[in-house]
Amino acid sequence: MGPDLKKPNIGLEVISNGTITTVDGFYAAADHCGIKGSGKPDICIIYAPHGAVCSGVFTTNAFIAAPAVVSREQLKKNGTIKALVINSGIANACTGKQGHINAKKTGELAARYLEIGKDGILVSSTGVIGKQLPMEKIEKGIAGCSKKLSANGGHSAARAIMTTDTAEKEIAVKIKAAGGKEIIVGGIAKGSGMIEPDMATMLAFLTTNAGISKVLLDELLLEGTRESFNRITVDGCESTNDTVLVFANSTGGVEIKNKGDENYLKFRDGLFYVLKDLARKIVMDGEGATKFIEIEVINAENSAIARELAYKVANSNLFKTAVFGSDLNWGRINAALGSTRNNLDPDKVDIYFGRIMIVKNGTGIEYDRDAAGKSWEGREIKFVIDLKSGGAGFSVWTSDLSLDYIKINALYHN
Amino acid sequence: MGPDLKKPNIGLEVISNGTITTVDGFYAAADHCGIKGSGKPDICIIYAPHGAVCSGVFTTNAFIAAPAVVSREQLKKNGTIKALVINSGIANACTGKQGHINAKKTGELAARYLEIGKDGILVSSTGVIGKQLPMEKIEKGIAGCSKKLSANGGHSAARAIMTTDTAEKEIAVKIKAAGGKEIIVGGIAKGSGMIEPDMATMLAFLTTNAGISKVLLDELLLEGTRESFNRITVDGCESTNDTVLVFANSTGGVEIKNKGDENYLKFRDGLFYVLKDLARKIVMDGEGATKFIEIEVINAENSAIARELAYKVANSNLFKTAVFGSDLNWGRINAALGSTRNNLDPDKVDIYFGRIMIVKNGTGIEYDRDAAGKSWEGREIKFVIDLKSGGAGFSVWTSDLSLDYIKINALYHN
Repeated sequence: MGPDLKKPNIGLEVISNGTITTVDGFYAAADHCGIKGSGKPDICIIYAPHGAVCSGVFTTNAFIAAPAVVSREQLKKNGTIKALVINSGIANACTGKQGHINAKKTGELAARYLEIGKDGILVSSTGVIGKQLPMEKIEKGIAGCSKKLSANGGHSAARAIMTTDTAEKEIAVKIKAAGGKEIIVGGIAKGSGMIEPDMATMLAFLTTNAGISKVLLDELLLEGTRESFNRITVDGCESTNDTVLVFANSTGGVEIKNKGDENYLKFRDGLFYVLKDLARKIVMDGEGATKFIEIEVINAENSAIARELAYKVANSNLFKTAVFGSDLNWGRINAALGSTRNNLDPDKVDIYFGRIMIVKNGTGIEYDRDAAGKSWEGREIKFVIDLKSGGAGFSVWTSDLSLDYIKINALYHN
Repeated sequence: MGPDLKKPNIGLEVISNGTITTVDGFYAAADHCGIKGSGKPDICIIYAPHGAVCSGVFTTNAFIAAPAVVSREQLKKNGTIKALVINSGIANACTGKQGHINAKKTGELAARYLEIGKDGILVSSTGVIGKQLPMEKIEKGIAGCSKKLSANGGHSAARAIMTTDTAEKEIAVKIKAAGGKEIIVGGIAKGSGMIEPDMATMLAFLTTNAGISKVLLDELLLEGTRESFNRITVDGCESTNDTVLVFANSTGGVEIKNKGDENYLKFRDGLFYVLKDLARKIVMDGEGATKFIEIEVINAENSAIARELAYKVANSNLFKTAVFGSDLNWGRINAALGSTRNNLDPDKVDIYFGRIMIVKNGTGIEYDRDAAGKSWEGREIKFVIDLKSGGAGFSVWTSDLSLDYIKINALYHN
């Protein structure tokens, strides 16, 4: 079954205006160094002066960008990280050897200005593919950020990583831990196009005051990513720069030693809540999106089939344009499902729009059109596809395909 | 390598205003029976009074429509066909048992009005999914068509099968055969959305005066479909009704007995030319299309990889909107290629826009922007992706993703 944010998490509370620096011991700052012509912030630093255990997940795209390669290598060498430099406007992807040199150089500049060792620094980029980073501007930006680092800087970092995003994406939650302590998890993210499973032009950076071993954190991040960023799609297009990083700095007095630890599941809840919330915000801000759509496939033979079918529907341009037009054109759902190469018994398929059954045993049925009409009024809609063939399920979040998607991607040149 | 219509076929001539009834012994007529509210023709019959050897290829969608199922069954029983009834406006797909009964009934009505046996009749439908055929109107239409059958009726049939198509798609060619005879192949087609490999809401009906065994014709149609309709995509959406039928009535005095026959390759040339021409016309008329795009992948390890990569690019919404915006955003091509799960060496990839190299070894290079700008002016553009990893290739035809695609599919309700 898919993630359900509406389920109450006992003991979990969303902190108002929460962000990455809501977590003690994390500092951030942003600057405008001139990569973007608009005067908007285009570089930021997240800083953990005492170091943080760090886990990362990176794009599987063959054209993986230089900063993702450099950070991945760094994390293999060194699981304790002190700083992360992120620029927006240029992705430093498909930039060859020079791109690799520039990504490493960015880390070295941060080491110099922050006066820390260069092995504790990660880098990340998002923006146009194919351009080289302007290293003088990058240096100016790093110098600027390093002077402004603040325990209130999270929001400015959330703004600085935006490209076509229309809103900052940030959150922090607190969870009551055993022993009267509090676990806090914060996060910021960017992304609105090129969103697909196995990540996308999508960056997410999380912080927590929990103490946890790298092995446990790696495992939890992988599982959490599967439940969040790897089940969203805006346009079926995978990107070169996708990166999710989580930093745990142990400042909260909660140490999670193993899976049996009484605080393990509490931390997991908080981490997954933040991951899902950020994933959801990315879909909500999908390029041109007017609707948030959940496609849930239930009662499949196995979850791989459920996943494939959910994505077939979620990535069907015909389905997505029908949703944009508030047209309950279930034939397009059937056609998308039918294009699977798995054995699908069309005579067993039921489809629900919210709670309204619209297809029974593969065929359209009469339904309450007034009730269906009302369901279109909300921003969020859900389709459930019941295969009646087993016990497995999978749910995907996507957005509709609107005129603005085309305008954003075709008419607004970089 | 992909189909190249520009290569001259020696001895092949396109007949001006040619269509299916350009071939002797085929008759057609169309009528408005009232399925479409617009008063436009919505039903037609193609008639071969002396019978024709017939081969067919049908959608592989699990939700295959009733008429396609009925025709597929009919062709298994009986390879000699006298009539085909096609309606537009309602697809008779996802219509359950009643849909199957109606498809069979359509054939029976045609048998009665044409006064022929019901085992020599095929049916085909295109239009909205999920609605039942209005059988009284269908009967009225069949009665009307059966009185008007004419050796000049091909063009009216080409009009009657249209749905969102903006233009009739038809052609006929003649080929000089050995022995002073002429082979003629004619065809009509419809389709503009839901176009993907393994067919789409796409109907094509071909006629020829050649004489050929069913076994040979089956084989040629399968091969020809692979080279034409199975390498086009408009929106990556596969349909429930796709059907290609070819009728051979032996009226030209040319009998093709086996592959060694001196006229075998001549007939193959003509058949493939018509299949490719119709496939090309479908892409040209793709919903909202402003550009005809060829994506050719060359020097791949094998053709399956070349095919997968060509489709990855051809179905990338980001790539297609960039083309709509005349934006040479090669990063989106790289990102689409990189999302393959095959081994792809990004550092080997070269990309050409027409003849202009724009990416070398995975990285953008300086190119003649004036020349590139000129290439956008034409209706047809081509990208060549050189993997430098082997000797195999594949080429796909597609169209751009425009504002009008969204308008057609979202804002114009059925």
